[in-house]
Amino acid sequence: MATILLYYTFNERHVDFNNNMLGFNGREARLAGRVREMEEQNQLLRRQLTLSQNHLVAAMKTNHSGKPQTTQPPCQKLETADIPKCEVIHVAIVCAGYNASRSVVTLIKSILFYRKNPLHFHLLADSVAQVILQTLFSSWSVPQVEMSFYLADNVVPDVSWIPNKHYSGVYGLMKLTLPKVLPPALQRVIVLDTDVTFATDIAELWKLFSKLQEKQSIGLVENQSDWYLGKLWKKHRPWPALGRGYNTGVILLELKRLRELGWGQLWRLIAEKDLMTHYTTSLADQDIFNAIIKQHPYLVYNLPCQWNVQLSDNTRSELCYTEVTDLKVIHWNSPSKLKVKNKHVEFFRNLYLTFLEYDGNLLRRELFGCNITKTSLKDRELSKLNEEDPCYEFRRARVNRLRTHLYFLDYDFEPSTDGSDVTLVAQLSMDRLQMVEMLCKHWDGPISLTLYMSDAEAQQFLSYALSSEVLKDRKNIGYHIVYKEGDFYPVNLLRNVALQQVNTPYVFLTDIDFLPMFGLYTYLKKSIQSLDLESSKKALVVPAFETQRYRTSFPRSKAELLRMLDMGTLFTFRYHVWTKGHAPTNYAKWRSATTPYRVQWEPDYEPYVVVRKDIPEYDTRFVGFGWNKVSHIMELEAQGFDFIVLPNAFIIHMPHAPSFDIAKFRGSAQYRRCLKILKNEFVKELGHRYSRVFETEDS
Amino acid sequence: MATILLYYTFNERHVDFNNNMLGFNGREARLAGRVREMEEQNQLLRRQLTLSQNHLVAAMKTNHSGKPQTTQPPCQKLETADIPKCEVIHVAIVCAGYNASRSVVTLIKSILFYRKNPLHFHLLADSVAQVILQTLFSSWSVPQVEMSFYLADNVVPDVSWIPNKHYSGVYGLMKLTLPKVLPPALQRVIVLDTDVTFATDIAELWKLFSKLQEKQSIGLVENQSDWYLGKLWKKHRPWPALGRGYNTGVILLELKRLRELGWGQLWRLIAEKDLMTHYTTSLADQDIFNAIIKQHPYLVYNLPCQWNVQLSDNTRSELCYTEVTDLKVIHWNSPSKLKVKNKHVEFFRNLYLTFLEYDGNLLRRELFGCNITKTSLKDRELSKLNEEDPCYEFRRARVNRLRTHLYFLDYDFEPSTDGSDVTLVAQLSMDRLQMVEMLCKHWDGPISLTLYMSDAEAQQFLSYALSSEVLKDRKNIGYHIVYKEGDFYPVNLLRNVALQQVNTPYVFLTDIDFLPMFGLYTYLKKSIQSLDLESSKKALVVPAFETQRYRTSFPRSKAELLRMLDMGTLFTFRYHVWTKGHAPTNYAKWRSATTPYRVQWEPDYEPYVVVRKDIPEYDTRFVGFGWNKVSHIMELEAQGFDFIVLPNAFIIHMPHAPSFDIAKFRGSAQYRRCLKILKNEFVKELGHRYSRVFETEDS
Repeated sequence: MATILLYYTFNERHVDFNNNMLGFNGREARLAGRVREMEEQNQLLRRQLTLSQNHLVAAMKTNHSGKPQTTQPPCQKLETADIPKCEVIHVAIVCAGYNASRSVVTLIKSILFYRKNPLHFHLLADSVAQVILQTLFSSWSVPQVEMSFYLADNVVPDVSWIPNKHYSGVYGLMKLTLPKVLPPALQRVIVLDTDVTFATDIAELWKLFSKLQEKQSIGLVENQSDWYLGKLWKKHRPWPALGRGYNTGVILLELKRLRELGWGQLWRLIAEKDLMTHYTTSLADQDIFNAIIKQHPYLVYNLPCQWNVQLSDNTRSELCYTEVTDLKVIHWNSPSKLKVKNKHVEFFRNLYLTFLEYDGNLLRRELFGCNITKTSLKDRELSKLNEEDPCYEFRRARVNRLRTHLYFLDYDFEPSTDGSDVTLVAQLSMDRLQMVEMLCKHWDGPISLTLYMSDAEAQQFLSYALSSEVLKDRKNIGYHIVYKEGDFYPVNLLRNVALQQVNTPYVFLTDIDFLPMFGLYTYLKKSIQSLDLESSKKALVVPAFETQRYRTSFPRSKAELLRMLDMGTLFTFRYHVWTKGHAPTNYAKWRSATTPYRVQWEPDYEPYVVVRKDIPEYDTRFVGFGWNKVSHIMELEAQGFDFIVLPNAFIIHMPHAPSFDIAKFRGSAQYRRCLKILKNEFVKELGHRYSRVFETEDS
Repeated sequence: MATILLYYTFNERHVDFNNNMLGFNGREARLAGRVREMEEQNQLLRRQLTLSQNHLVAAMKTNHSGKPQTTQPPCQKLETADIPKCEVIHVAIVCAGYNASRSVVTLIKSILFYRKNPLHFHLLADSVAQVILQTLFSSWSVPQVEMSFYLADNVVPDVSWIPNKHYSGVYGLMKLTLPKVLPPALQRVIVLDTDVTFATDIAELWKLFSKLQEKQSIGLVENQSDWYLGKLWKKHRPWPALGRGYNTGVILLELKRLRELGWGQLWRLIAEKDLMTHYTTSLADQDIFNAIIKQHPYLVYNLPCQWNVQLSDNTRSELCYTEVTDLKVIHWNSPSKLKVKNKHVEFFRNLYLTFLEYDGNLLRRELFGCNITKTSLKDRELSKLNEEDPCYEFRRARVNRLRTHLYFLDYDFEPSTDGSDVTLVAQLSMDRLQMVEMLCKHWDGPISLTLYMSDAEAQQFLSYALSSEVLKDRKNIGYHIVYKEGDFYPVNLLRNVALQQVNTPYVFLTDIDFLPMFGLYTYLKKSIQSLDLESSKKALVVPAFETQRYRTSFPRSKAELLRMLDMGTLFTFRYHVWTKGHAPTNYAKWRSATTPYRVQWEPDYEPYVVVRKDIPEYDTRFVGFGWNKVSHIMELEAQGFDFIVLPNAFIIHMPHAPSFDIAKFRGSAQYRRCLKILKNEFVKELGHRYSRVFETEDS
């Protein structure tokens, strides 16, 4: 019996837990300590129980009576008891760049969908992926999911000396460094490529670690193509491999054993040796893993093939999944990905699309029975709200942190060095998507756009952008997805997300329904310099017009615009319904103006402006329709900004059907009442902050 | 060993920690709760461990070898091998009306998501549900899913004599008739309420049939509310039940045994007897099932509680799912459904929403290894196509059968008896949804609308329609969902779906962007009678106009319309871009016309017309933009229809941003080329069918 107990040792610890302790009072700290203690005890007990039950089953199988019990079979318990339900499963993924950051989300969604255990993801990421995924996961806040990031740059020198022909480049080799990169306390980890999809609970894979004997340190599935057998073509000379070799898309890695073995030295020596004859790797880390296993076969543990069903063009994978009922992990390891030719690709694609389009918000499911209760900032703020407040829904919407995927598409832009560069900032949802192309034809400068979409819509957007002649090669647009949640369009939150991602010193704050005059980008940069925005608090006003016709010819000059105004085919913006919003711009003066002129702020003024990037954020209490821009302009006024109208700039609003949010505003008296309350609260707070009295609306 | 186990003592007790919350701050309270939770787990684990180890010692004593096996535990195989992978699982559901037809789809999606076996659903349905679900499943065509329908009307007399207070009405009692209704050859079936959701493979439940001993014929989960214990309020006198009674949301029914037992007689006698004292059932079939079990307890088999976790307002269900790792089936048996008050409702709701919004097309997954190869009509037609054809995608789109859910919302309309009633027919996608309310304000007659949407969008539509003051009480609109699939907007397929569901003798074929003049419905009915459409081939043309302004006042009369035309605030439809489409209507003549006048058809004529319902369908080869209406009007001309313009009718097109499909058409030369090819093919076929020569476009 003793041997059974000694077989297992404590190996997981809640490292991060300590970080949250700061600021606790003593009683709390004691309680937290007790929780950890109990967790450890429970973990030990569960392991003991599992083991004991395993042995019981085995013993009963070989038992004299040969008669299995007829009551509840012990199996079911075993199945679920195998991995203690609160044991943390560790997963490591190498992830670099914009595209991989998108793929990895689908992988992680598939894991989250089936998982029943706490998870800890270790991401060896480049700085691009780190920014994207850190933001995504902190805004996603899935219970019982921990993320740790390790900057890939730090280990680039460890692998960059290896010539690699594989499309994954230097990052394709980086899995080799995991025993070095991951924390010394971490004993084992599941390593995954970003192009795999889970079709089952990852705990089942984690469970297989218990099968690795003595020196076995690398669990792998056999390669399902004939690559390592050689002879695929004349002069095809693959790296050495055991039998048909192994695929490294899914790896069980016994970090502790590998470290003890001197892994760092081991793989380097073997790589150096084989590079002498092969000059370069063809399949990145996979070649080196295979060379190592060829030399040290005792290191490998053969995972059942369904843990890495490889969908490149080959028939071996089919042999695997027709033999077993269950597919566990699908590996899209063909460069053609979803377009791979495979008899059953429709089946696999459906599984993949399931997670691609799955509403990630639904994955914020609690794990019953092993909740480490962390009170989030959001929970604390929510608890301060009064549910009886008739405007509760508005206040709640403000607190909501929405899942955010920054830089959903490739992005590559460096601002001009003269210090006057300006980014156009706007936000939209699906129903305005067709405006993006038009906008791009009118503005060739950088753009920061927030898109408010569901997961499925984000995919539609992706295929739209990748197939659009106008958009596909344009890399100076940052597309940031905020995933839909709740009933209100969180307009100011969306604006803030776009604003935060700007990397030019100036921003042009506009709305998606406006088309800028041709050449506005260049004109704004010149104006920024000539009006010395750097050293003065100025907001440059771009006068706004509107057309009520949806087929219109866009004026090529101010003169043409003025003619169209006179003919009644153009109007000043919202002239018919909300004149106050733009009246201070003084359109009459603008008609003849040839130099910039200062105008006086008035309540309800909401011009479209060019300002420094470091202006205050938009106030997120305003959601849906109403007072979302007015409040921002008011704060600029409170800060002492001068409003300067540009004489040769204009934008034109394109018509569209009324949005649902406006319909809601028009229809609901409660909506209007709450907006008035929020507005008065904002104005009072603003006055207080800037020691200035603003008039509030009469109640 | 013993010492290790004894080291821990049982000293913690369960305390209702909600009572201790007062005075603590939130974080502390949560931590304290967590400690208690962990302690409880700890206690349970220790008990299990002791037990297991005791058993192990006992087992090993009686074992020859005494050596536990160290290889693969035999369990896993047991688990999956239990049900042969191609065995058909039979499920019976009672389903009546529009709302239940929606719910049952979510239930079936959850089953399909996890299933690995062929399924056969037996639906005891009223005629409404039968029409909806037969169409849905035949257009869904999920491999290895069979549907059988049994008309509920046939067994209404079997149960309608039982007074029932439950909201489910007569259909709530109908499960009692299943042994009679289902085919004699069917031995066993899983019976489900429409408001349950699966969280696991239904084969696991099917497997439990093997546990039913001898006479056990009804597998049920205990009731999780205290209802049958009585005393919920003064004079609460529930029907007799064994212990706390059973819930009938999930039933394993051994049909064969029940039939042998004389089930029909059995339940009827017991129901009659108990009705003498109770007068009426409160919980429909459940009361009767419980009364039967009370008298014949040997009939029941107790299913584990997780197979029917009942989410009405009670705490028993929580006891169930905190004890087990796995939830198997969730039962939304509270009348408040998703709004039920339950600590973990967010968790359950997420699971439910997962399937509610899940793209049903993705469930068309093949089952590997047990495919009964049926070649569908679609497959046969697809195989005739040539993949090298540059217009292959268009031809494929035509063959595609799209998943269709007819009458998504309540529908209740009988046409007027004078034989002149007319239904407005149109189709739309999400981006035109706001037009539906406007349309309804202009047309109070029946409407047949096809909506092209994703599953998630259909839910958005549902909540829009249910909360809209204009729509929620209007029952004369048939809303038919065609679920999105493929790249093209299948405009003519959508029109055909709406056309097929019309139950008036006449239809007004229009598009969703048009608002009819006020009173058009009445005017059309009169015109139909006075122009004798019944006995002559006539198409009544409703002249079409357009406004390019999105804020416009709608003309109240023809005179006002003519004034607006003269002022240039209105135009004849597509006057600027495609005059040919409506030129034959002869707007000049219409201005002064006071009586209907006949006009001559010309190529490219595409008026909006009123015709008999039995006209030919639209040609579905035209998808996306172009020639979809023109081809239909051309066929009317070929059939010898006269086109008669109505002098006092008009519709006005409202502006909107250009649709994606138009953008695609404008951008792609291939699209234009294929459209021309399809058009010429159509024209030739038409000429052939009607022995008439139409000019084809020059290539």
